[in-house]
Amino acid sequence: MAYSPLVRELIDAFRCLPGVGPKSAQRMTFALLQRDRNGAQRLARALEGAAEGVGECEQCRDLTEAPICALCRSDQRNHAVLCLVENPADIQALEEATDYRGLYFVLKGRLSPLDGIGPAELGLEVLATRFAQGVVREIILATNPTVEGEATAQYVAEMARDANIQVSRIAHGVPLGGDLEYVDSGTLSHAFAGRTHYG
Amino acid sequence: MAYSPLVRELIDAFRCLPGVGPKSAQRMTFALLQRDRNGAQRLARALEGAAEGVGECEQCRDLTEAPICALCRSDQRNHAVLCLVENPADIQALEEATDYRGLYFVLKGRLSPLDGIGPAELGLEVLATRFAQGVVREIILATNPTVEGEATAQYVAEMARDANIQVSRIAHGVPLGGDLEYVDSGTLSHAFAGRTHYG
Repeated sequence: MAYSPLVRELIDAFRCLPGVGPKSAQRMTFALLQRDRNGAQRLARALEGAAEGVGECEQCRDLTEAPICALCRSDQRNHAVLCLVENPADIQALEEATDYRGLYFVLKGRLSPLDGIGPAELGLEVLATRFAQGVVREIILATNPTVEGEATAQYVAEMARDANIQVSRIAHGVPLGGDLEYVDSGTLSHAFAGRTHYG
Repeated sequence: MAYSPLVRELIDAFRCLPGVGPKSAQRMTFALLQRDRNGAQRLARALEGAAEGVGECEQCRDLTEAPICALCRSDQRNHAVLCLVENPADIQALEEATDYRGLYFVLKGRLSPLDGIGPAELGLEVLATRFAQGVVREIILATNPTVEGEATAQYVAEMARDANIQVSRIAHGVPLGGDLEYVDSGTLSHAFAGRTHYG
């Protein structure tokens, strides 16, 4: 009873955002209505525009409003190297952290048969087509180090080997600045087994 | 470079929400675009509707799309009692926690001369008009127990006394379930000084 219908509707609508519960939704609603109506309208337009305009790149499945994304169109990038990631956000993380100059392929998920996510849902036939075209010479597997991410990496590695494409996997181990005593045992055993020659 | 313009714009627009930093904004954007386009469009419409439609109640300054809010129009409520709160969200909290059946008055802030917030910004002339009308017999001061909230309560208490209106202040002390050992010293000294007769 205490909220008017438009206010109630906005609080409810905010709940679709990840990590936003009833209190946060209320706080966001009051903050926008009391102090930032322009921000509210800008957010409304941005949501409308993105929800209608953004699709996926035909080549790499990244989110983009163009048929082919800016990275895949760029002649500044090495089209012979692909980096396989689970999510669009991973591209941003890699672009910020590394000087990688190749292209990407976004799975938008990981193999998870129990959830009904198989090769088709991850666009692996699109990836197979690219392998068959003969431009790609190397693929870097940057899926997450979870059971499903590992299984996905294995699956794609086999596809790549069948197409005579060089395969590598990003390194997993103790993070920089990490303390052995506090690293989880899975990471530690992985780091130990995967030790490299030193000095 | 990694994000397309519409995606970038949506991430930036999410930053206007309280408590949302670059990582959360990115997470919200990808969650909506990958899994919940309907939610995005619903949120867009709700924002647009609320930003354009919601104003403030002429009587209590609560957020509402009507000239006078549902509470102030209701004949189920006691129009002789007002509860003074800082924010619209406080009304919801009181409605849920108490069986209060009077009306409210929303300051939308607290006296804070350094920030240029004086009686006019808090709508205290509207409140003075209501006092002068003679309907209100009692006011309950429920501003927050901060220095500014306390100063605001004092200011309104004087206005009310001048208009011969009964004034009370909600109790402050050790919260239920609180442990004396861990309660901050300000609260504890307040609770000690404000002890009431028992048994």
